[in-house]
Amino acid sequence: MALVVQKYGGSSLESAERIRAVAQRIVATKKAGNDVVVVCSAMGDTTDELLDLAEQVNPVPPAREMDMLLTAGERISNALVAMAISSLGAEARSFTGSQAGVLTTERHGNARIVDVTPGRVQEALDEGKICIVAGFQGVNKETRDVTTLGRGGSDTTAVALAAALNADVCEIYSDVDGVYTADPRIVPDAQKLEKLSFDEMLELAASGSKILVLRSVEYARAFNVPLRVRSSYSNDPGTLVAGSMEDIPVEEAVLSGVATDQSEAKVTVIGIKDHPGEAAKVFRVLADAEINIDMVLQNISAVDDNTTDITFTCPRADGPRAVELLSALKEEGEWKDVLYDDQIGKVSLVGAGMKSHPGVTADFSEALRDEGINIEMFTTSEIRITAVLRETELPKATRALHNKFQLGGDEIAVVYAGTGR
Amino acid sequence: MALVVQKYGGSSLESAERIRAVAQRIVATKKAGNDVVVVCSAMGDTTDELLDLAEQVNPVPPAREMDMLLTAGERISNALVAMAISSLGAEARSFTGSQAGVLTTERHGNARIVDVTPGRVQEALDEGKICIVAGFQGVNKETRDVTTLGRGGSDTTAVALAAALNADVCEIYSDVDGVYTADPRIVPDAQKLEKLSFDEMLELAASGSKILVLRSVEYARAFNVPLRVRSSYSNDPGTLVAGSMEDIPVEEAVLSGVATDQSEAKVTVIGIKDHPGEAAKVFRVLADAEINIDMVLQNISAVDDNTTDITFTCPRADGPRAVELLSALKEEGEWKDVLYDDQIGKVSLVGAGMKSHPGVTADFSEALRDEGINIEMFTTSEIRITAVLRETELPKATRALHNKFQLGGDEIAVVYAGTGR
Repeated sequence: MALVVQKYGGSSLESAERIRAVAQRIVATKKAGNDVVVVCSAMGDTTDELLDLAEQVNPVPPAREMDMLLTAGERISNALVAMAISSLGAEARSFTGSQAGVLTTERHGNARIVDVTPGRVQEALDEGKICIVAGFQGVNKETRDVTTLGRGGSDTTAVALAAALNADVCEIYSDVDGVYTADPRIVPDAQKLEKLSFDEMLELAASGSKILVLRSVEYARAFNVPLRVRSSYSNDPGTLVAGSMEDIPVEEAVLSGVATDQSEAKVTVIGIKDHPGEAAKVFRVLADAEINIDMVLQNISAVDDNTTDITFTCPRADGPRAVELLSALKEEGEWKDVLYDDQIGKVSLVGAGMKSHPGVTADFSEALRDEGINIEMFTTSEIRITAVLRETELPKATRALHNKFQLGGDEIAVVYAGTGR
Repeated sequence: MALVVQKYGGSSLESAERIRAVAQRIVATKKAGNDVVVVCSAMGDTTDELLDLAEQVNPVPPAREMDMLLTAGERISNALVAMAISSLGAEARSFTGSQAGVLTTERHGNARIVDVTPGRVQEALDEGKICIVAGFQGVNKETRDVTTLGRGGSDTTAVALAAALNADVCEIYSDVDGVYTADPRIVPDAQKLEKLSFDEMLELAASGSKILVLRSVEYARAFNVPLRVRSSYSNDPGTLVAGSMEDIPVEEAVLSGVATDQSEAKVTVIGIKDHPGEAAKVFRVLADAEINIDMVLQNISAVDDNTTDITFTCPRADGPRAVELLSALKEEGEWKDVLYDDQIGKVSLVGAGMKSHPGVTADFSEALRDEGINIEMFTTSEIRITAVLRETELPKATRALHNKFQLGGDEIAVVYAGTGR
């Protein structure tokens, strides 16, 4: 008998009707002879409605109270799913994050799971019950206060529970039926992937794919929990994310897909004195402000005056703050100027095959050149090539790369890099 | 420095605006030099909306899951009130029933508080914080499952916390500014009461007054916690409920007020064999069905055939079920017939003064006679007289008694017997 952990997102639980449909799938999984643990997100817009209420009573609410507020959302969907299951004649038992033993760090609003002690869940499983666990939430180990896990927290809850319970698979349900080679809205002949490795999924998540949250994939890889991305609207087996790149025989190693990202902005600091430690000042001020920078590029300044320029990308949401901080240092004469550009797009080619296929970088840049697309920044990892270009050229670039590497054909070892779906 | 426990009902918290207003009152109480513990009900219609959702996924939801669902409502109002307080510059800390140490019996949906161990609340108070506790909920001592306290549960939570924390007063806030001599909608010159004893409040609650839940008054009397009924819309001191009847000097003892109740129905069982134990069968079948009966009246049957008739009142909600059960026994030949009447009204006169004023019963019946009102059932307690009559005559009867005993005048030692406000 297998132990299956299923996670359902808010869109899969947005109405009583959808909740009853999800309950039927859960009961069917149980009747198929599996032990089942279900992790639920909050219903549809519940979280946004609660955030709106909070905003009305306090524009800057205390993080602890915000967590107390938001966790009510998962409690509600949790209980409703348990009720729907029992209306189908099966036995269900719901647990809050705290009751399920999800212990976290102290940081409200963005806590990290430090331990999972699902004793009560295991007991209920042993009694043959279906267990429903509220996602996104935990309890602070020290103060026993309620905490939330930040964006995509329910995925992380599901993976962490699957690891702690030694589950056979963790199924992530949403309204997408798997991982695709590219955003089908941009590339019509994008293909769904049957399987890919944790490493490839990590690169895709880091390159703009929204289908799985980076943190949950990291957790799954660390504890080797097989993930299956599925749609709650179909019976399609979806995409399996499992195994390390090394498990893939070289001859089978292929390019996974093209990921696109329109969420970043570009900042350039001009005229930094070319002495040791000068550049570090840029990254220190950003780090102190907890601004995550992605791509970084440094080269000698155009004008030959013994200075360098540094260009980096960061989330557009943090862009203005970054410029403000760096401009302040400019006033102190640290450097000449600070430029900002939020009209950029990022396109990435991901795949284990890259290691064993020379010339991929050349093909990549030629594909864009043939379309007359200018590359503004360029970086590579062992299994990824990323270019920054004009946002307006992102669709054309994506299609060009998708064709160049024949990701459309019957090739299935490919990956969807969604844009928020 | 006094310790004040304040309980706010759902109507006082129905919007962000109302929540901000409540927060201002709380902070003002704190600034006046008091320690403050606040118990919140769920916002406005939240509970009804959750019940509606549950109905849609499962018409007969498991009680445990229903409690998990409903307790989310108080979590939400709780956190929002804490946020609103901190926006006013004061420090607040919210606690779930479980975190506040509200331990209950196992019975989901209608659990009883068995112990309150508010260690975390006391700690926060000692740190100078305002404590917000979710009402209506607790945690089952044995299984550590979330429970709810049933109707008016938040009042009980407030009183129980006040007792456990040895508070100086427990203020119950709603949209009514105190306890009145009668429903002002029926009796225009009804007067607000300054003070009355626990015993009088108990009789009023039992006689149809909805302003305080019977269980919370019982709890307050048992632990001698002074209650103050106030409006969250005004600064009126409201009505103090404290002390036992014995504390009231006889010369000050007066009649408190007239309570009305339109929630009951009358059932008459005809032709019960006049042997020991025959009547007991009636009450046994009702007790087994957990139907609470109120007034009971037994007398010799009109037709002289060695049988008796028994008439009793019970909540209209339970009426049809009671008739069904008793009719079943009728088929078995236990008795001749079962009559049902849900058009009755109950009017009660309550007051400690009754003991020391002879002739009150006579005045009572004459007042109704003068209005041509027929009394169908009649019972008395040490401090209460109750008559059952046609529901349509309830307003006229209420006014007649209110005038007869001069409860309107400048007399203030009188009591409101609300109808659901």
